[in-house]
Amino acid sequence: MIERLTVIGVGLIGGSLARALRAAGLVGEVVGCGRSAANLQRAVELGVIDRYSHNPGEAAEGADLVFLAVPLGAMREGFAALRGHLRPDAVITDGGSVKGSVVADARAVFGEVPARLVPGHPIAGTEHSGVEASFAGLYRGRRVILTPLPETDLDAVDRVTRMWQVCGAEVTTMDVAHHDEVLAATSHLPHMLAFGLVDALARLRENDEIFRYAAGGFRDFTRIASSSPVMWRDICIANREALGAALERFSAEMADLAETIRRGDGDHLLEIFARAKAARDRYVDGLAAGGPADLG
Amino acid sequence: MIERLTVIGVGLIGGSLARALRAAGLVGEVVGCGRSAANLQRAVELGVIDRYSHNPGEAAEGADLVFLAVPLGAMREGFAALRGHLRPDAVITDGGSVKGSVVADARAVFGEVPARLVPGHPIAGTEHSGVEASFAGLYRGRRVILTPLPETDLDAVDRVTRMWQVCGAEVTTMDVAHHDEVLAATSHLPHMLAFGLVDALARLRENDEIFRYAAGGFRDFTRIASSSPVMWRDICIANREALGAALERFSAEMADLAETIRRGDGDHLLEIFARAKAARDRYVDGLAAGGPADLG
Repeated sequence: MIERLTVIGVGLIGGSLARALRAAGLVGEVVGCGRSAANLQRAVELGVIDRYSHNPGEAAEGADLVFLAVPLGAMREGFAALRGHLRPDAVITDGGSVKGSVVADARAVFGEVPARLVPGHPIAGTEHSGVEASFAGLYRGRRVILTPLPETDLDAVDRVTRMWQVCGAEVTTMDVAHHDEVLAATSHLPHMLAFGLVDALARLRENDEIFRYAAGGFRDFTRIASSSPVMWRDICIANREALGAALERFSAEMADLAETIRRGDGDHLLEIFARAKAARDRYVDGLAAGGPADLG
Repeated sequence: MIERLTVIGVGLIGGSLARALRAAGLVGEVVGCGRSAANLQRAVELGVIDRYSHNPGEAAEGADLVFLAVPLGAMREGFAALRGHLRPDAVITDGGSVKGSVVADARAVFGEVPARLVPGHPIAGTEHSGVEASFAGLYRGRRVILTPLPETDLDAVDRVTRMWQVCGAEVTTMDVAHHDEVLAATSHLPHMLAFGLVDALARLRENDEIFRYAAGGFRDFTRIASSSPVMWRDICIANREALGAALERFSAEMADLAETIRRGDGDHLLEIFARAKAARDRYVDGLAAGGPADLG
């Protein structure tokens, strides 16, 4: 199905896509690209890629599918390096957690969003990174959201959809802005709360003692605060509008909740907690079990 | 060591104490007290208690140690029912997650805080409840905080300390107000954020879709929002001062973070996230592994 796949950024996300397509026998050659020669050499040894180049344009020459799995902050530079090196029929897609910024980066580089660029977001990950952490089953049963624009080539969308389906993922399409709002609520906002809480406690003078009394529930709650600070800085900047708004709204709601607590309004508290418990028991426990820490 | 232990509230917390002391061979008779005859009957069948009464005063007659493991909202009523039924040398302790309210309840009922009342808080729990969920190892390796007052009998503190040590717990003492502040930060505040987030998403119109895209990290983050709404209403009301203040502070910090994100101040974001990650990796992953959901 794919003659030559170029993966820009051969880490957990990019490496796992290559492995899954190889496992399905649906890719000819895989060309890797990245900065670390050691990581790329390891990727060759592991059979994840066949060869590599440190230059994205060179790596993408002759490829019919190019997957950008670089941090959001490196996306624009990645597009720029590809310009003039792509086959006319090459399909480009990416794995960025924010789609508005990727579309803006593409527009800035190419003057318009290329018709054969299909912005995408595989909602999958683990707390590990690098090609060593990649595995063929990462996307099995997970969701991939594609956010094509009105001008996106339908055939390109179809190719990317089938590529992810082959990896075992469930593919849905969504409007760019809606994607960024949904992810702000379900992923970016929780990460801000976990980072913010741990940071607030760490800044207290007696923080040694504070953390000593934090037990099991705290560990689960703050697990996502062990995620990559650089990746999350990039996500915040890339999704600043939707995330800023979601965080402001939540901050106001927590101020209201503080007031409800101070007032001792038990009925209102019970209503909030019962509604939350019901929603979590219904929706979250109903989801297919995911990895230990989905960083999507 | 304990001739007759009376457990008011034979659920996960009370039942596990009885089981642990029995397993250590350090308790003579165990008398249970509660509302549900079925639960108490089951406790007898399981060998957790020897006999029971629905009346706390009757259950506590002749006991040398009385453990109140009732919800915070039932603590005052529990003390009132004990009045006039206690042996003069009986030691009373409790398992409430907030200590200021327990001390206030005792003062309201007895006129002063009895010298042989040792307020306590075993930081342990699972997401299950009832005597069926109790087990002798619940407190092994967990912390128990005692908050004696200046007027508390030292011998009583010593007895309660040894009782918990026999169960495998690490016992520390702390000032009442300090306990309530530490727990507000490490337990009550995270629960408010998890309940608040799930409730905020549940109130969105397209909540079905929202939850569909919430993956692994969200599941961990919101696990504590499946806790008992009634228990948490009681905790909020009992710790309203410290928790209200902590939640207000956090709300203001999240408003600041929203502003930092909107400004696109990547350096500041990186500083916050890196400090949080370092603190979590250092303190939380360094803690002994706890149960699946410590509801302390």
